[in-house]
Amino acid sequence: MKSYHLDIPGRGVAGLTVRDHARPQPGRGQVVVRVRASALGYRDLMVLADDYPLPIRPGVVPGCEGAGEVVAVGEDVGRVAPGDRVAATVFPRWLDGPFRRDDAAQLGTMIDGMLTEYAVLSEDGVVPIPEHLSFEEAAALPLAAVTAWNALTTGGAPRPGETVLTLGSGGVSLFVLQFAKLAGARVIVTTSSAAKAERLRALGADEVIDHRRNPEWSEEVRSLTGGRGADRVVDATGPLEQSLKSVAVRGEVAFVGYWLSGAAGARPIDPGTLFKAAAVLRPVATGSRAHFLELNRAVAAHRLRPVIDRVFPFDQVPEAFAYCEAGGGFGKVIVGHG
Amino acid sequence: MKSYHLDIPGRGVAGLTVRDHARPQPGRGQVVVRVRASALGYRDLMVLADDYPLPIRPGVVPGCEGAGEVVAVGEDVGRVAPGDRVAATVFPRWLDGPFRRDDAAQLGTMIDGMLTEYAVLSEDGVVPIPEHLSFEEAAALPLAAVTAWNALTTGGAPRPGETVLTLGSGGVSLFVLQFAKLAGARVIVTTSSAAKAERLRALGADEVIDHRRNPEWSEEVRSLTGGRGADRVVDATGPLEQSLKSVAVRGEVAFVGYWLSGAAGARPIDPGTLFKAAAVLRPVATGSRAHFLELNRAVAAHRLRPVIDRVFPFDQVPEAFAYCEAGGGFGKVIVGHG
Amino acid sequence: MKSYHLDIPGRGVAGLTVRDHARPQPGRGQVVVRVRASALGYRDLMVLADDYPLPIRPGVVPGCEGAGEVVAVGEDVGRVAPGDRVAATVFPRWLDGPFRRDDAAQLGTMIDGMLTEYAVLSEDGVVPIPEHLSFEEAAALPLAAVTAWNALTTGGAPRPGETVLTLGSGGVSLFVLQFAKLAGARVIVTTSSAAKAERLRALGADEVIDHRRNPEWSEEVRSLTGGRGADRVVDATGPLEQSLKSVAVRGEVAFVGYWLSGAAGARPIDPGTLFKAAAVLRPVATGSRAHFLELNRAVAAHRLRPVIDRVFPFDQVPEAFAYCEAGGGFGKVIVGHG
Amino acid sequence: MKSYHLDIPGRGVAGLTVRDHARPQPGRGQVVVRVRASALGYRDLMVLADDYPLPIRPGVVPGCEGAGEVVAVGEDVGRVAPGDRVAATVFPRWLDGPFRRDDAAQLGTMIDGMLTEYAVLSEDGVVPIPEHLSFEEAAALPLAAVTAWNALTTGGAPRPGETVLTLGSGGVSLFVLQFAKLAGARVIVTTSSAAKAERLRALGADEVIDHRRNPEWSEEVRSLTGGRGADRVVDATGPLEQSLKSVAVRGEVAFVGYWLSGAAGARPIDPGTLFKAAAVLRPVATGSRAHFLELNRAVAAHRLRPVIDRVFPFDQVPEAFAYCEAGGGFGKVIVGHG
Repeated sequence: MKSYHLDIPGRGVAGLTVRDHARPQPGRGQVVVRVRASALGYRDLMVLADDYPLPIRPGVVPGCEGAGEVVAVGEDVGRVAPGDRVAATVFPRWLDGPFRRDDAAQLGTMIDGMLTEYAVLSEDGVVPIPEHLSFEEAAALPLAAVTAWNALTTGGAPRPGETVLTLGSGGVSLFVLQFAKLAGARVIVTTSSAAKAERLRALGADEVIDHRRNPEWSEEVRSLTGGRGADRVVDATGPLEQSLKSVAVRGEVAFVGYWLSGAAGARPIDPGTLFKAAAVLRPVATGSRAHFLELNRAVAAHRLRPVIDRVFPFDQVPEAFAYCEAGGGFGKVIVGHG
Repeated sequence: MKSYHLDIPGRGVAGLTVRDHARPQPGRGQVVVRVRASALGYRDLMVLADDYPLPIRPGVVPGCEGAGEVVAVGEDVGRVAPGDRVAATVFPRWLDGPFRRDDAAQLGTMIDGMLTEYAVLSEDGVVPIPEHLSFEEAAALPLAAVTAWNALTTGGAPRPGETVLTLGSGGVSLFVLQFAKLAGARVIVTTSSAAKAERLRALGADEVIDHRRNPEWSEEVRSLTGGRGADRVVDATGPLEQSLKSVAVRGEVAFVGYWLSGAAGARPIDPGTLFKAAAVLRPVATGSRAHFLELNRAVAAHRLRPVIDRVFPFDQVPEAFAYCEAGGGFGKVIVGHG
Repeated sequence: MKSYHLDIPGRGVAGLTVRDHARPQPGRGQVVVRVRASALGYRDLMVLADDYPLPIRPGVVPGCEGAGEVVAVGEDVGRVAPGDRVAATVFPRWLDGPFRRDDAAQLGTMIDGMLTEYAVLSEDGVVPIPEHLSFEEAAALPLAAVTAWNALTTGGAPRPGETVLTLGSGGVSLFVLQFAKLAGARVIVTTSSAAKAERLRALGADEVIDHRRNPEWSEEVRSLTGGRGADRVVDATGPLEQSLKSVAVRGEVAFVGYWLSGAAGARPIDPGTLFKAAAVLRPVATGSRAHFLELNRAVAAHRLRPVIDRVFPFDQVPEAFAYCEAGGGFGKVIVGHG
Repeated sequence: MKSYHLDIPGRGVAGLTVRDHARPQPGRGQVVVRVRASALGYRDLMVLADDYPLPIRPGVVPGCEGAGEVVAVGEDVGRVAPGDRVAATVFPRWLDGPFRRDDAAQLGTMIDGMLTEYAVLSEDGVVPIPEHLSFEEAAALPLAAVTAWNALTTGGAPRPGETVLTLGSGGVSLFVLQFAKLAGARVIVTTSSAAKAERLRALGADEVIDHRRNPEWSEEVRSLTGGRGADRVVDATGPLEQSLKSVAVRGEVAFVGYWLSGAAGARPIDPGTLFKAAAVLRPVATGSRAHFLELNRAVAAHRLRPVIDRVFPFDQVPEAFAYCEAGGGFGKVIVGHG
């Protein structure tokens, strides 16, 4: 069986090598999953560029999102059985409750990830996938959907009638839009592309704001909400300042750190802006197994389908990364493992 | 102007008198509302029967639900203005947060209520009503909708994909059904009438259980939820034992006290049943001004319409009460004040 | 090395056998702990009597509480190392967040417990113990202290100045008393023994009520709180009815199920009593690893010491059980493993 | 009776005039309080300087903190009676729950405040004061103590054993220290004065950090907490960056906006610092009537005494403001009204 390995972090795809292995055996509490699809994204590009805030083990199998079929289980495994369709969780030790430092081990950085034909995972590190989803669709969930669910629900699920603002059309934002609509919220999304605006509306966006036309677009959020502001803001792109100016008193800004790496959005924030927001600011980094189980129920109940941008075959992972890096897509970039 | 007065509690409608008054003037912090519609229900019947757990002031104007138009405001009133369409809140002093004993003053028992042509209310004791609603529809909200919203959201709004069980087709239960559907929940309702089952499905119920056919209907809830049980139960009719047997681990039973007055549902509960439920039990009595404001936003955003059973004219209040008492309706019983 | 085994559940201590084994080896993710002390209690008696609500594996090593020293660690173990002083958690899979059904595996019923010289435990199933505690003291924590912490903090820690009522002088209640005093609460305890009343006061109880003298002792709670009632009640003995009558509006009754097995306290509850309490009712069963870690910090910071009743040597486990069963003690019954 | 009036905002104490009035009469829902003591602070200085973020009514009676005796009650007043000892709440309309924009009316800016001999207040705008406190001590509570209580408890009261960090020895910080000790927390305080360090320790501070000696004092917080950081930070002085670097994962930074007005602490924050904190950031502005009632219970139960710096007589209000402005005090500056 074949795996990609990140032998030399810092060189991008040039640091990747494919190697052949014997099919792995599960240890106690572990399962072997035949990976059927994985997903790539901005986080993986940061890892390849050696620009990620966590340590990377040289030679690690990259890729923190994937889904497949359980083909073997080790001793003391009781939650899954061979034949089960499962997705991997990005932080296999983060099961429930808030994040803890000693749960920081993460697929694709210190622990071998999903760009492989067979992955060895802990039984707690996989969750069943909704029946109506293909493996390609399920592979879209572990990072972006879990982050979106955590961002939307940790401070309490949005109440019907609340306004949710989400920034841009990246992976997290699309799931925020989809989940917030399920929750009965009114959803405002920002984008700078007319074509994407149309697709966002088709996914349920009630309002789309062109953030490029008006860099002070928080004014538009205020005006669309009768001056009140959005009850919930999920900010996965920045600029955080506009999010803080968009949020309602008693509200919450959940923000995701993707844009940290020198993004234009990462401008310093005046403490006065933080204070005047009169809203809680909650940093969000992926989520727990419990978040994943919950979102799967929502996805299953509503037969929701993730937005897939493009599917690449397993031997074109470098091309898939290049496509990701070029940007401009809409939805998740998937690798089909066959 | 005319008002009904409960001169002799304990005699039912026979204890009611209509009297003529001069049109009232608002004091500091007060408004005068020309009442355009009020609503009647089980609570009012209990008050007339002198079977209510709170003290009743002889001569009080009964009726705790109503809507109308502000026609005069007193000194220091800043929240509303003449011409505003408003609904009264049942507990005018309960503004936000959990209930406090010293906020117990309630319309229609100690404080004059809504069965009148002109009501004097505190400015904090009225809320604006959604534009798309008629006065008749708005009058349906203060008791049943506020209770339903409190029951559904105080322990956190339901998450999309969760299962909500609500008992029967009384006023609270119909709003629970409507609100839970807005929140993306799967909703199970109990009833014993095939005709009502059909109407419940039309309102969005995913599953309807005939509780008469199977007194151990919690078994059906278990079977409809893969053994897991309902994440949230709102119990406004009892028997509480079946609710406790229906709820999921980590779940919540919110229960409303209408059925206390000797209802068949009021059977004693074994503490073991409470413990094995492994779910929180939350007594719910109406709700605060903040609950009402929140639900109004949901109602407005989704243009939701309350279910009205029948509208009686103001001079047929006794007939309206008799209709209520006969039972068997579906939706709120409204009095149009003209 | 020696272990007790429950070969025949239902016969009490007569069902126990001691057997000799080779010293065990840890699997992946596991540790071997040389058990230095364990604790016995009512739950273990129920298991021996086959009167416990969970299934019991014949031949299981009983005992769900114990502490010792790590002597060996398996592959992939990162949280503990040989030489670490640790206590076992009762539910090794319940790490954080609310209880889940699939985390129900419990030491001493389905999984081998602590009445052994060497225990094989998962690395997630042990927590470090505070430095100032002996192994005997640490063995007192896993069940009673974790339950008390869960009961007191899950609905939010008590605020300074709040009143906490706890029933009796059983293991859970003593920890509730100690923890609530740390939190700045005023604590009321019930007992029927003058000698125990004195010891409870020495532990910090502000008020002690003789529940035998006045079966309607909730009246005394009301009178001691100016009519308001206790903000928090932890009920580990019943009768629940008195707890419900003692709790303040907006308050919480956390109740523990020890008394389920036919105890005098297990009288049926009128739903009206549940409703009129106007307080949340929260069933509590032990707690998670996260609860244990938190309470250990409190115990360490305040150099708190558990109350030990008596310590029996490892070969007198039957005598220790007999002592437990006789009742009347004050504090935990410990087995010293040498 | 005499009152101070802020006739010309922007001129400091030079803008104040004393005027004589007839003793006021209470309207419906109002009480008249003979003010016995008031308190001054940084907020009042900002108001006098016309440097406050809320509008100021010219001629307003300044002063948002004070206590006294009820001497008259208007119609429909049920919560207090003549003779009651009460303190005023800073936001008379903010009764419970999170802050709302339409509860923004505040004593001493739009509504007449406490630098007067007789104040007219709404009955909801006063709370009873603990028996053991003098009027001077009670006047120290409405702003600083309520803010401290809100900051410490809104995200859940600290659990015993948690670490609370509070910045400096201003009014809010001293109450945070006192309340956090009541809650069983370990408390770290920053100061740059050796004399204050000693007084902070006398009030219960477990650790005092000299923030001037080491501007990167968050390193000391880390080192005092084994690398973990403080579970709760209350930041009433800034710099916020150091607070964010001091807080533990899963923790919370509650920050108060006093330092907004060009203070040295108000340096812009890198979004990366906000994200890496992995803790919730909660802006805090005073608190509700419910917060005040709760803290009064804690103050009463523990017979806690506020720290009073100096008491000035009513005719020396300008001197009291000058003393405030000079800074360097320890505890609240009080005005005794005689």
